[in-house]
Amino acid sequence: MPNDLEKTPVTVLGLGAMGQALAAAFLKAGHPTTVWNRSPGKGADLVARGAARATSAREAVRAADLVVICVVDHNAAGAVLDSVAEELPGRVLVNLTSDTPEHARKTGAWAQEHGIDYLDGSIMVPVDLIGQPPALIFYSGPRAAYDKHETALKALGGKPAHLGEDQRLAAVYDLALLDYFYGSISGLLHAYALAGADGVRAADLAPYLDTITAFMPSVAVDAAQHVDTGSHPGEAGNLGMMASGVGHVLEWAEHRGLDVSTLRPIKEVYDKAVALGHAADSWTSTIEVVRGNAGMPRGDRASQTL
Amino acid sequence: MPNDLEKTPVTVLGLGAMGQALAAAFLKAGHPTTVWNRSPGKGADLVARGAARATSAREAVRAADLVVICVVDHNAAGAVLDSVAEELPGRVLVNLTSDTPEHARKTGAWAQEHGIDYLDGSIMVPVDLIGQPPALIFYSGPRAAYDKHETALKALGGKPAHLGEDQRLAAVYDLALLDYFYGSISGLLHAYALAGADGVRAADLAPYLDTITAFMPSVAVDAAQHVDTGSHPGEAGNLGMMASGVGHVLEWAEHRGLDVSTLRPIKEVYDKAVALGHAADSWTSTIEVVRGNAGMPRGDRASQTL
Repeated sequence: MPNDLEKTPVTVLGLGAMGQALAAAFLKAGHPTTVWNRSPGKGADLVARGAARATSAREAVRAADLVVICVVDHNAAGAVLDSVAEELPGRVLVNLTSDTPEHARKTGAWAQEHGIDYLDGSIMVPVDLIGQPPALIFYSGPRAAYDKHETALKALGGKPAHLGEDQRLAAVYDLALLDYFYGSISGLLHAYALAGADGVRAADLAPYLDTITAFMPSVAVDAAQHVDTGSHPGEAGNLGMMASGVGHVLEWAEHRGLDVSTLRPIKEVYDKAVALGHAADSWTSTIEVVRGNAGMPRGDRASQTL
Repeated sequence: MPNDLEKTPVTVLGLGAMGQALAAAFLKAGHPTTVWNRSPGKGADLVARGAARATSAREAVRAADLVVICVVDHNAAGAVLDSVAEELPGRVLVNLTSDTPEHARKTGAWAQEHGIDYLDGSIMVPVDLIGQPPALIFYSGPRAAYDKHETALKALGGKPAHLGEDQRLAAVYDLALLDYFYGSISGLLHAYALAGADGVRAADLAPYLDTITAFMPSVAVDAAQHVDTGSHPGEAGNLGMMASGVGHVLEWAEHRGLDVSTLRPIKEVYDKAVALGHAADSWTSTIEVVRGNAGMPRGDRASQTL
């Protein structure tokens, strides 16, 4: 059994499925672990495994150096945190409640007002991977606060990543990864539907889809360089050719009667970039279309989006 | 130097960039190689490396057991093939011209009428990977014709795949892979734009996108099973939760002023599947929406799509 005296005392506020998994991971790593949930009756299993159950959020916070909150949403988190604000200075607060960058920023401002060291976090894996080596969890906020508790946080997932001091960053990276994920699985399912319309089983297609997946990391690196530098050289296959390519897929999908509501706009974005003069550039030049008015100077944008 | 006497004599019809790469790969593998192009002046480099230049398509076809054609489109291929139809029986014709499944089927019917062994093919890699070990090329058509020349075809790409006797299959798999690819890179670029709107560099995001890419093969396998069996169990994360997840990304992208023409329809497909009663099922149940009227009995569909 690990020597509990050397382990950071931790508290988990919120015992939904994810909160319970977090507390269980801390317990397994040997941390003295206190748990609390707004409504009673949850976490009996955790208590049986050695967790201390606090009768109030205040009592729970007082028991720990590292306080992790994971509840249903920002409003629920705010209500709990407001009630214990004066107990938090001197400890580190980690909010793993799923959130927008704007909510993370507001909580960061609230924490600063109250002199609280605050890390916002985003859990990038399902509940059953919590505590496992490949589990990716994003953190953003004061580096010193993260460094102090990195070892304890590794109990929650083997791949913690501190993204920067700005508390919005964990949520920004989270949303961007989801953006890529939803686009990818939308294309995946459309590919299965397209093949299926010609009698090809998805299981027969899947191994060949892996050849696309296999070169996505290098596509991502090349595209990132184009996006960051604003230079979109089209030698290796230009936008005009790719607009034609996606056009062929679209035509066939329409011919087969598939829903093309997700595919047609991809072609339209390419066509718009071609109309902007990018036919001989890389497909990554479509970023100018995708940015929409986010490509405008920040002042102009802010007035439209706030 | 390889013993040319043991190598199948081959002909390449069409000396565009891809045709030249195919001929160069055959030459490198030691095949007696004859080349022909409709307009003169192309392929001097190939002749310098040992290729025989034919003065007519007919002469080119007569020189080889394996005839590969790769020209700009179906119409160009048809014109050349019609002019040499009576020379082709007893040889194997491989058409690597990029094509639709319907054109492949028609060429297959034409070949059958003329007693020609015909394989339709789709090259899945750019010109500069032709002849390399990882180069994937799809073939479909008579298995015996493929088996006879598999060794020679491996000179063009280390990963040839014979998909079945139906000549449409190479084009179907080709279009399906492109469908997945365009969806994936659309999501990739949107993710970069989303992160960029909050000041995150694409190069900083890219390594984390790889964590999504890394589990796509297992997502593809699970989704294939759901699609093929028509059973969409939602234990590991249901459609309702995922519709909410993509909704959060959409809201933030709109808030940031991004073009959401490619993202909103993904949410709408999820919403339609939820409305069909699939909230507690897997996200793969959206296939019912994606299939459109391709999910209808074939007789009804054919009347709409032909």
